[in-house]
Amino acid sequence: MTGPVPEGSTALLTDRYELTMVAAALADGTADRACVFELFARRLPDGRRYGVVAGTGRLLAALERFRFGEAELAALAQVVDPATLDWLRDYRFTGDVDGYPEGELYFPGSPVLTVTGTFADAVILETLALSIYNHDCAIASAAARMVTASAGRPLIEMGSRRTHEEAAVAAARAAYLAGFATTSNLAAGRRYGIPTAGTAAHAWVLLHDDERAAFRSQVAALGTGTTLLVDTYDIRTGIANAVEVAGTGLGAVRIDSGDLGEMAHQAREQLDALGATGTRIVLSGDLDEYAIASLRAEPVDSYGVGTSLVTGSGAPTAGMVYKLVEVDGRPVSKRSTSKESRGGRKSALRRYKPTGTAVEEIVFPHGGPPATGPHDRELPVPLVRGGELTPDAAAPLEDSRERLRAALVAVPWEGLKLSRGEPAIPTTFVTES
Amino acid sequence: MTGPVPEGSTALLTDRYELTMVAAALADGTADRACVFELFARRLPDGRRYGVVAGTGRLLAALERFRFGEAELAALAQVVDPATLDWLRDYRFTGDVDGYPEGELYFPGSPVLTVTGTFADAVILETLALSIYNHDCAIASAAARMVTASAGRPLIEMGSRRTHEEAAVAAARAAYLAGFATTSNLAAGRRYGIPTAGTAAHAWVLLHDDERAAFRSQVAALGTGTTLLVDTYDIRTGIANAVEVAGTGLGAVRIDSGDLGEMAHQAREQLDALGATGTRIVLSGDLDEYAIASLRAEPVDSYGVGTSLVTGSGAPTAGMVYKLVEVDGRPVSKRSTSKESRGGRKSALRRYKPTGTAVEEIVFPHGGPPATGPHDRELPVPLVRGGELTPDAAAPLEDSRERLRAALVAVPWEGLKLSRGEPAIPTTFVTES
Repeated sequence: MTGPVPEGSTALLTDRYELTMVAAALADGTADRACVFELFARRLPDGRRYGVVAGTGRLLAALERFRFGEAELAALAQVVDPATLDWLRDYRFTGDVDGYPEGELYFPGSPVLTVTGTFADAVILETLALSIYNHDCAIASAAARMVTASAGRPLIEMGSRRTHEEAAVAAARAAYLAGFATTSNLAAGRRYGIPTAGTAAHAWVLLHDDERAAFRSQVAALGTGTTLLVDTYDIRTGIANAVEVAGTGLGAVRIDSGDLGEMAHQAREQLDALGATGTRIVLSGDLDEYAIASLRAEPVDSYGVGTSLVTGSGAPTAGMVYKLVEVDGRPVSKRSTSKESRGGRKSALRRYKPTGTAVEEIVFPHGGPPATGPHDRELPVPLVRGGELTPDAAAPLEDSRERLRAALVAVPWEGLKLSRGEPAIPTTFVTES
Repeated sequence: MTGPVPEGSTALLTDRYELTMVAAALADGTADRACVFELFARRLPDGRRYGVVAGTGRLLAALERFRFGEAELAALAQVVDPATLDWLRDYRFTGDVDGYPEGELYFPGSPVLTVTGTFADAVILETLALSIYNHDCAIASAAARMVTASAGRPLIEMGSRRTHEEAAVAAARAAYLAGFATTSNLAAGRRYGIPTAGTAAHAWVLLHDDERAAFRSQVAALGTGTTLLVDTYDIRTGIANAVEVAGTGLGAVRIDSGDLGEMAHQAREQLDALGATGTRIVLSGDLDEYAIASLRAEPVDSYGVGTSLVTGSGAPTAGMVYKLVEVDGRPVSKRSTSKESRGGRKSALRRYKPTGTAVEEIVFPHGGPPATGPHDRELPVPLVRGGELTPDAAAPLEDSRERLRAALVAVPWEGLKLSRGEPAIPTTFVTES
């Protein structure tokens, strides 16, 4: 990671104390101590059975732009001393990063990301790494439950308007990673190549002199395969108008309000009676994983999900922490009261039955793995070596989708239940190898 | 808003359907119909008594960068037709915007923002406006409750690591607007001039050979006025070490874990016994407005708040919607099932007692205000006229802080309770003037 400071520095997306700690460490000579930081979740959100790793690709991209240009340094003139400004001017991350690949599952204590480098090199990444992982893992974890609940029916991510405008783009990415089919967010389409989708708003119907005029215009512009929003006035009339205007080849109707299950049922009957047997039914409107699951028996073709997705469905942040676990080869950990950590650099493997079902997450001291069986799989992969991204770091989003799909297939069936419960598999901490 | 396309276009931070609606409206001739869209909350989050308007300044800044450059147009080549691409190339918002100023309170149905323009000009802003308001209002509304709960003790915003990295910057802004004293977020300091603050992490103590070495180094680098984190090992020993190293002039100690009320009590006794009577006590660690309120009787000097702040303390999105209410002077509204809206452009005033206490929010048809009394105050101000920002649009953040402070003083005392309840004042909808 060399060369000039790129556009869009991420270096100030951090907490002031990271830089004042660097300043103090440069002054007292501890800045160069060899350190290991681990990013992990002490626990899953209340009642959740697994977490989904997401944000790795975004962090690695942000790391390449974590550079202090003159504008950033000027902003820090009152924060740190001139010697520290000089150090920041030359800063490039030159350490190593290992981590669970995106789309992998994690459990309490799983070492999701390990950053190895000097204290100053590694501590300075704390806030940025946590921001990205805490957001993206929260969204992907909620999204995965919705995908499970939808039982194969496609999900459209349409939550951009319910969250910060840039968080929306990251949320679309996390949802796609977790198995959503499409997103409404155009920036996510451009930035990450995610397929975009969309129907029309109620404003579209209200703009026109009547519903049929609105439908006619939409079909003329977007084709018969479009999705018409039929609940602006009266759903039954709306469906009749839709088929009258578009014909029985109409792509889909969307219903955004009311008792969605009952509405879907009536809409299917009406569409079939009109001969529009191939017209799909899209439901939206305050759906979450529980509502989606409750609609399994109804004739629904796809779901649009917004608010609950982008707010993590009750768990808007993943509770990840970034902890110093090793200094110059010596394990360290906080020891006061409630928030204890396990010192020492760790790795992890997942143990499976011969049938392929996961049974246990084993977290063990790095470099001293326990005897591994034929059905064990080590989880972290190298992402950065000496400051340079590895081939694993460039994994496409499609691979992460597939990884998650496979990981969920391997979870014991209780682990896929939406109800509150224990983690799908237990984590065992091996303290000696 | 003319001139070349600025850096950092915001134009793709939107939903695909906004642009396909524009395309269809350009094709059928309705794109130029005169429209009014209103942004409002149908209800407050469950049990909340008021909302705080925030995001106006950010939206107006984003509006100036809502322009389609060649890169954005290239990304849309598969989304809309060439005629629409041409229209987007020339797009500049040329309409009007009125709104509640930042820091003002809002209630269910308050017309927080009104966008007037052609259909195409105004519909295209829906997603961006909602993203910004739904996020920033959620954070500011939670923050205001924490400020009330803190009863004058300063609050430090330190939640960056718990939310998306750019949402973190906006959250710091919203918290400051709501009365927080400082933020840990350096980008917020640079972008918005918010005072930044910070202490040190547990990693700082763990890095060193012992706690005293860490404290000595921090004091040497940051001065005696710094805040030492005393709960890495044993709090009592930590405080003894802190005063031994820094002397009785030590600025503050921070405690981040344990029974915070009891810890504060013991820490105060110990500090006083050591002669450090001026050393302040900073508490942090999973604080929310309820925890802060419960600490009122304890000897605490300031609070660091993270997770609960940036996640809106249980209400991570404000539930704002953006609805078409008028087309060519004709009121329009959705009429199907549960999600009804009131058609027609509206304005609002707040009615006060002679004592200055607010009693009622009155929402009335625009242009036909009810007879106003001497203690009524009209709420919306002009923000954009013919696409150009007004002087009101440039209100500094300090003014918004002061506006909120004054608005909360005027709320009936029940309205400041943290417990669940009805909105602090009722909203009356006047349908005829």
